[in-house]
Amino acid sequence: MKASNVTMKLHWDAVILAALKEDIPWEDVSANAVVPEDARGHADLIAKADGVVAGLPVFCRTFELLDEDVQIDLHVQEGERVTAGTLLAEVTGNLRALLSGERTALNFLQRMSGIATYTRQMAQLLEGTGTTLLDTRKTTPLLRSLEKYAVSVGGGSNHRFNLSDGVLLKDNHIGAAGGVRQAIGLARAYAPFVRRIEIEVETLEQLDEALDAGADIVMLDNMKGEALEEAVRRARGRAETEISGNVTRENLERYVALGVNYISSGALTHSAPILDVSLKHMKRI
Amino acid sequence: MKASNVTMKLHWDAVILAALKEDIPWEDVSANAVVPEDARGHADLIAKADGVVAGLPVFCRTFELLDEDVQIDLHVQEGERVTAGTLLAEVTGNLRALLSGERTALNFLQRMSGIATYTRQMAQLLEGTGTTLLDTRKTTPLLRSLEKYAVSVGGGSNHRFNLSDGVLLKDNHIGAAGGVRQAIGLARAYAPFVRRIEIEVETLEQLDEALDAGADIVMLDNMKGEALEEAVRRARGRAETEISGNVTRENLERYVALGVNYISSGALTHSAPILDVSLKHMKRI
Amino acid sequence: MKASNVTMKLHWDAVILAALKEDIPWEDVSANAVVPEDARGHADLIAKADGVVAGLPVFCRTFELLDEDVQIDLHVQEGERVTAGTLLAEVTGNLRALLSGERTALNFLQRMSGIATYTRQMAQLLEGTGTTLLDTRKTTPLLRSLEKYAVSVGGGSNHRFNLSDGVLLKDNHIGAAGGVRQAIGLARAYAPFVRRIEIEVETLEQLDEALDAGADIVMLDNMKGEALEEAVRRARGRAETEISGNVTRENLERYVALGVNYISSGALTHSAPILDVSLKHMKRI
Amino acid sequence: MKASNVTMKLHWDAVILAALKEDIPWEDVSANAVVPEDARGHADLIAKADGVVAGLPVFCRTFELLDEDVQIDLHVQEGERVTAGTLLAEVTGNLRALLSGERTALNFLQRMSGIATYTRQMAQLLEGTGTTLLDTRKTTPLLRSLEKYAVSVGGGSNHRFNLSDGVLLKDNHIGAAGGVRQAIGLARAYAPFVRRIEIEVETLEQLDEALDAGADIVMLDNMKGEALEEAVRRARGRAETEISGNVTRENLERYVALGVNYISSGALTHSAPILDVSLKHMKRI
Amino acid sequence: MKASNVTMKLHWDAVILAALKEDIPWEDVSANAVVPEDARGHADLIAKADGVVAGLPVFCRTFELLDEDVQIDLHVQEGERVTAGTLLAEVTGNLRALLSGERTALNFLQRMSGIATYTRQMAQLLEGTGTTLLDTRKTTPLLRSLEKYAVSVGGGSNHRFNLSDGVLLKDNHIGAAGGVRQAIGLARAYAPFVRRIEIEVETLEQLDEALDAGADIVMLDNMKGEALEEAVRRARGRAETEISGNVTRENLERYVALGVNYISSGALTHSAPILDVSLKHMKRI
Amino acid sequence: MKASNVTMKLHWDAVILAALKEDIPWEDVSANAVVPEDARGHADLIAKADGVVAGLPVFCRTFELLDEDVQIDLHVQEGERVTAGTLLAEVTGNLRALLSGERTALNFLQRMSGIATYTRQMAQLLEGTGTTLLDTRKTTPLLRSLEKYAVSVGGGSNHRFNLSDGVLLKDNHIGAAGGVRQAIGLARAYAPFVRRIEIEVETLEQLDEALDAGADIVMLDNMKGEALEEAVRRARGRAETEISGNVTRENLERYVALGVNYISSGALTHSAPILDVSLKHMKRI
Repeated sequence: MKASNVTMKLHWDAVILAALKEDIPWEDVSANAVVPEDARGHADLIAKADGVVAGLPVFCRTFELLDEDVQIDLHVQEGERVTAGTLLAEVTGNLRALLSGERTALNFLQRMSGIATYTRQMAQLLEGTGTTLLDTRKTTPLLRSLEKYAVSVGGGSNHRFNLSDGVLLKDNHIGAAGGVRQAIGLARAYAPFVRRIEIEVETLEQLDEALDAGADIVMLDNMKGEALEEAVRRARGRAETEISGNVTRENLERYVALGVNYISSGALTHSAPILDVSLKHMKRI
Repeated sequence: MKASNVTMKLHWDAVILAALKEDIPWEDVSANAVVPEDARGHADLIAKADGVVAGLPVFCRTFELLDEDVQIDLHVQEGERVTAGTLLAEVTGNLRALLSGERTALNFLQRMSGIATYTRQMAQLLEGTGTTLLDTRKTTPLLRSLEKYAVSVGGGSNHRFNLSDGVLLKDNHIGAAGGVRQAIGLARAYAPFVRRIEIEVETLEQLDEALDAGADIVMLDNMKGEALEEAVRRARGRAETEISGNVTRENLERYVALGVNYISSGALTHSAPILDVSLKHMKRI
Repeated sequence: MKASNVTMKLHWDAVILAALKEDIPWEDVSANAVVPEDARGHADLIAKADGVVAGLPVFCRTFELLDEDVQIDLHVQEGERVTAGTLLAEVTGNLRALLSGERTALNFLQRMSGIATYTRQMAQLLEGTGTTLLDTRKTTPLLRSLEKYAVSVGGGSNHRFNLSDGVLLKDNHIGAAGGVRQAIGLARAYAPFVRRIEIEVETLEQLDEALDAGADIVMLDNMKGEALEEAVRRARGRAETEISGNVTRENLERYVALGVNYISSGALTHSAPILDVSLKHMKRI
Repeated sequence: MKASNVTMKLHWDAVILAALKEDIPWEDVSANAVVPEDARGHADLIAKADGVVAGLPVFCRTFELLDEDVQIDLHVQEGERVTAGTLLAEVTGNLRALLSGERTALNFLQRMSGIATYTRQMAQLLEGTGTTLLDTRKTTPLLRSLEKYAVSVGGGSNHRFNLSDGVLLKDNHIGAAGGVRQAIGLARAYAPFVRRIEIEVETLEQLDEALDAGADIVMLDNMKGEALEEAVRRARGRAETEISGNVTRENLERYVALGVNYISSGALTHSAPILDVSLKHMKRI
Repeated sequence: MKASNVTMKLHWDAVILAALKEDIPWEDVSANAVVPEDARGHADLIAKADGVVAGLPVFCRTFELLDEDVQIDLHVQEGERVTAGTLLAEVTGNLRALLSGERTALNFLQRMSGIATYTRQMAQLLEGTGTTLLDTRKTTPLLRSLEKYAVSVGGGSNHRFNLSDGVLLKDNHIGAAGGVRQAIGLARAYAPFVRRIEIEVETLEQLDEALDAGADIVMLDNMKGEALEEAVRRARGRAETEISGNVTRENLERYVALGVNYISSGALTHSAPILDVSLKHMKRI
Repeated sequence: MKASNVTMKLHWDAVILAALKEDIPWEDVSANAVVPEDARGHADLIAKADGVVAGLPVFCRTFELLDEDVQIDLHVQEGERVTAGTLLAEVTGNLRALLSGERTALNFLQRMSGIATYTRQMAQLLEGTGTTLLDTRKTTPLLRSLEKYAVSVGGGSNHRFNLSDGVLLKDNHIGAAGGVRQAIGLARAYAPFVRRIEIEVETLEQLDEALDAGADIVMLDNMKGEALEEAVRRARGRAETEISGNVTRENLERYVALGVNYISSGALTHSAPILDVSLKHMKRI
């Protein structure tokens, strides 16, 4: 996912506005008490730890929604690796707007940069292996597109975005359908034809059935050791393979040599610690 | 913050509904392809790690919004400490609703339980010290009240909820006002009288000025060692004291003996890893 | 697309409610003037022309949103072929609710049934040919999922739902990318892996390039006669084929013998005349 | 109804934005994959059939909402009759915005122009007869004001917009009130005084009763031949007359000579085929 | 306007919910601090002044939206005249819901009852005169339909609801059109045919012109004494007459003998003092 | 509360837009009938009575939302005292926008100015007494922040904004908690620490208990004469004191000499008559 202007106007603007309302349900009482309405200010956005920056368009837009004349000079690019102390950007504008938007802008940026940082670390372990790193639907409620975008910035790829745009048949679907073959058949008949059909298999027997039924992608779940290696071998050329389930940057290495097409990790979005960023040296100008 | 029915109906219902729409923008294509509309199912909610459970009302409500006849038998209570493998709840209802709501319900529960777990660990370190653990505004955009509620469940207390309901004067406010005394005076004159005035001070001189001006709470920022100890002594009996800034469960101990009134930690909400929970054994009944 | 309860609660309820508000921005002045609040009524839903019924869940829900105790006895099933005069359903409930909801309920039903009727006619012409009938994105703004659902009821299949859930590379994308091969390469690298890549080609040269580049589906645009037949032959076994562009029930036959995988028709949703249905014999009971 | 700036800002902007969100629930994956964010493009809006153009302000606004710097040069005026091949407008702007907005802009324009075209044909048959052509409430849910505006552009007039702004007493209202006279009396006493009272009558007896009770407008329903002519005669000078019910451009002529004040036709909005328009020659500039 | 269930579900529910959110943006901190979630309570709704009660359906609905099991026993009817001390209703339900909904429910009720009380006083002065009392558009923003409903309860009638549903040509319209005759002609040609045309005239010459042009209603503005009496005489039988402008219960009498059809008063909605009502004897049960 | 740009963009814009939609649910039929779209106009905003002006930013914004090029020259400042006949502002812009926005803009301005006028009168009676005038939560539903802002403009101060941002323990809370001491204890333990705890007491015994329990503010309810004076004496230096309940500009004087810290008056927002303002001399330019 990319951060195009179209997505900003149609979707992210509303998310940012809602976040600002959450933080300012009627007024910023501290700013209104002591800062004159027309005071102007300047502040530095600084990284306080090493990592990959993601979310600069959201950071900027937060202030623009409060002050259309705000000026933001970016010193780094989206996706750039930064170190503690790096000056990321300078913000100049209405001082009340700077104070009122600060926390919201940082809350977005630190979270998205945290995801990008974590993703970059995992993606680098997969460089040159032919295996693609994917995210999952284990994202923060209401922030999925922002988080999947951050995964992209970090160098990962996006799995399906939701239950509408991708088919993934699991245990329960297979059970309800009466078997692997039937589930795949029903899905192929039903799903919009632009979808590929992915199915989760737990045994080599299920795998064979899925391959015979024409699954596009097989998720190898709970398979280990030789069975897993055999599964990857059997699928090669017939369907793409994905490994999922508790893959983190700590344990990723054990899957690297398998040669699967995809490894998906919920940790990218649910366990990445934030990247500490801060708005410093704010002063009236 | 508590999880009353009033807050659920006025606020959280809308958040849960928006999260479901995010995950199902038009239909659950996999469930609709293979599961008959009137099929019913049952599943077990199981903890996959040790921790404190928070978010059960949200978990339940997610399914209720999709199937008003769903039955959920809770085996643990909100705020209870659980271990990996604990059966937390059983869910019985329309099978499509179970499949369609699963991920959203878990995304809420795992995040809120993660916060409660992290908070409990820190709160316990403060037990008996007279120091209260507080959260901050470093929360996930759009989820603040859910996260502050999770902090409460974990045993923490809530700092201000937003920029409207609390006064906290920082550097920039002091600068804009022309000094500590002026800032406090302006805030006291302006703020609704139910607010207490908190101010961030960086030196003993600022502290004295704040105490003289009648600050209700002083946040001791960037103070260390003897200066910090001296600051706490001077404030005692004249204003409450708060320490803030990069306090985590790893470094909390160094602040325990100081005898401040409050320690606030952004890590509670921005760095707590999720508690892994899962919906297992889903089957048609 | 199916009409599950999940989609109703998450999406269609809001559409129906908005439609009712559009027709009743403050009150139904005629009903309020002459009908007592607690009067109850009964009415017959009758087809006034031959066709296929679609939209009964929406028809019912319209009244339920105004009167939770309304009783609707359906005499036909969704997707059933009916003739002029058929009694489709009987509605019993609060008389004001019947009067106030009548036009909105019928506006949905007549439009959706019109689409299902038109679709059924085209789908039948393709029966046994191995070619699947698809809809397009040429739908009524704000009603897309209802219309795509009506296509399903009529016997058609759904193409992509929107610009987010499917990749279709056209002239301009190819031009911007610098060629067919480059466009496919960029799309494959970028798109969530659950997407298949479709590309529109206008010449046999473009077709060959698309097939070599691994397109999943080729849309044969503006091809005619022998070139078209040759294109279908070349694609067979290498990619699926789709024909699009001004296909209507009047001209569908000319494409039947080609043996393509898919024929898509915007006419299904933008040119299907309504099926005339009416609420008759409304009377106070 | 006219297309003033006030209506655009208060109402249509939101409709257009919702339509764009429907088509782009998170991103335009094809455009984002292959088109650079800052690429600019140009395209021609061309009529592919003869008809009357309506909806240009909506067409333009669709692109403006995605790219505030888009330039649109209109070559025809709203309401102008065009022929197949006419260049209607040229659009220049951000290429991603052109690609992302294309389908939505056309979906509005083709539908509204179809209604205007159909209306113009019927309105012309009534020219010089003293009979005014009216629309009905048989409009597309959520698009009523756009469709009634298109009727105006086509040369028709607007009947009431909804159940709140006009009184029309039908069978059921008469029954509930206990008779024609009572229904009119109740409505006159109740309805805000700027409303005129219209009532549907099916017999000459009902007509007389309505005229005696002071109805402003009588809708002559299900009357035919001599009875209809007699009804028009009796009403003349005492109330205005309206004919309604399945009037289309095919059968309009049979009502032309009657000399009624109004003929209303649901077909204007529920059965007008679209006017085919297309965005051609899109290219990067 | 009446308070039907349809209007409640389509419109007032949303207003009430928004009012509750305004008063409880995240939680009722006092109630949550001291009242157990399952405590139940009882309270008496008591009038603290003499007046006419309006808004009981809104009062009830406020509590129902917080507690679907609340029981409210009404001791008076909507529109009933009450005296200070009258027990209006008894409310029994969840104690937190009673506490949390109290202020919002009363804010609606006291305001609506104030309007009904004021209206009743003016309407009684007009009883038997043949002159109808009307409200205006000088209502509280966002509460218009509730306030117009309260006017109805008080015995007044409703003027147009908004700028869309009624035509009222004033100075500026007349000026823009080029004269009274032209303005009326343009309005008649343009306005949906269910509208009557009202025009404001300031002189007898304008009046004559308006009558000749077929105005349905003339608003006699700024006319006094004999000119006003003459105007009413001239209009009789040719158009209805309305007097407007700063009519209050204090000065209404001076207009009573004129024999105009309508007198409209903005004071009904913008200057009616509230009727004091209170929820007393709230106790846990 | 102040009228900062941040609050305008995050909150008031939406309120103003909703008010405009309420008054123009689809079009301004009078303006559209007779005024050309590009006509421009000018009008004078004039006070028709003496008072204090509040709401000018909202007045201006109403027109700006309809016509971004409108020019408004303010001749007075927010909070300024004006007399009948004062020219407050001149408005120049699109004539349709002036006509369409007039009523909404005035409805806000007259109401807010009425509150400011009433507040100023009461605040002046308290000048030099050391007693602060407070508003209450007895505001118009959906307009609370606008009304509290108007109170500020008039010279009053703001009590809590809602049930979330302030603690006020009343009878029922005390009863539910089991006593004054327990209620205060529960509230102190529960409420975010930036809150002060206010409690309503009815007797000197309750007062003593509240003071001993550390209440920050005591509301002296239903106390009269010597008991009231004694209560104020006892509280001095231990807690702040507030008097509330049916305080109006008519009876305020009786409380002036008491020396309490705060007097709150619901009348400020629920009983202030509007300040009559009018848009005059509107003419096409």
